[in-house]
Amino acid sequence: MTRWQPGAPQRLQQAALELFASRGYEETTATEIAQSVGLTERTFFRHFSDKREVLFYGQDVFVQAFLDGVDNASPEASPIEIVASALQSAASLFPDERRAHSRTRQSVIEQNAALQERESHKLAGLATTVADALRERGVDDLAATLAAESGATVFGIAFTQWIRDGEKRSLADICAEVLHELQNLTGRPRRGTRK
Amino acid sequence: MTRWQPGAPQRLQQAALELFASRGYEETTATEIAQSVGLTERTFFRHFSDKREVLFYGQDVFVQAFLDGVDNASPEASPIEIVASALQSAASLFPDERRAHSRTRQSVIEQNAALQERESHKLAGLATTVADALRERGVDDLAATLAAESGATVFGIAFTQWIRDGEKRSLADICAEVLHELQNLTGRPRRGTRK
Repeated sequence: MTRWQPGAPQRLQQAALELFASRGYEETTATEIAQSVGLTERTFFRHFSDKREVLFYGQDVFVQAFLDGVDNASPEASPIEIVASALQSAASLFPDERRAHSRTRQSVIEQNAALQERESHKLAGLATTVADALRERGVDDLAATLAAESGATVFGIAFTQWIRDGEKRSLADICAEVLHELQNLTGRPRRGTRK
Repeated sequence: MTRWQPGAPQRLQQAALELFASRGYEETTATEIAQSVGLTERTFFRHFSDKREVLFYGQDVFVQAFLDGVDNASPEASPIEIVASALQSAASLFPDERRAHSRTRQSVIEQNAALQERESHKLAGLATTVADALRERGVDDLAATLAAESGATVFGIAFTQWIRDGEKRSLADICAEVLHELQNLTGRPRRGTRK
């Protein structure tokens, strides 16, 4: 009955992003998104439960990239070294060609409080999943949670820097720098420097 | 015309929590919450824009406690020491008498994805506000963001531990322990321990 549409979700996602950015998220309907790429509303709702979902399409791939990075870390790696590996793996999903797309998506999300909440929740969910993977590797419960949460924080901050106007560094490089700064910041204080 | 209702928001909040926990969040209306404490729907909507808001009442006090902790840190304090001060200040809002209340609130939030998103967003907003306060104290932009995000992470983890069944430690003590663990975890790796 229904025939398979190659790449329909991707086409819908790209179309949605363009319409959200040009007309506004609230003002754009699922039907308009579908029609703009010659698809029907029915096709839209076969792939997405609502127009909000279009913006979060591909999250499973994103989370999987983190998990692959966890798996690829050496058996001797410390929790924070595992997180560094996960960050590098996730960053590889965002080559420089994708920066403009990511920037547009972010500008849409910033227009709408509900989308911001969803985005925060996505990072929270990512941390939970990565923490579970760390525990499976034998990392202690609290250390796993902290390392995973720190990884999500570093990714979020690095991503925000990456999509800034004029930013030239790769996401992978920014992730490494932000993680390094976290280590400087939270490492044991150098006692007696000031007092 | 409208007379001041002493403590109406607090009474509505307590009533809402009890109804959400016993009947379910979705099944409880604003009118039922108001009626259960002898108030009108109109009074309810004078204090809260919807029933979800009841669960997030007092957030300004929560954020202010963090900011007071930032202000009270000594001028020589490192970013992470300022965050430690903010955590202790925030933890003081949650004495042991409040643990049962907080536990009930959490169980309601866990029932509902939209509430979880709001809660994640609340912690994200807290981090943004604390980061601004750190910048005002002269902390470098990236360090301020990282320290504030780490503080929100530590608070979230500590809070989850605090409301666990059978947990006896104070929230302040748990916050200190979790922050300590973060410092152990992200501190400069001890090179050569394994290889």
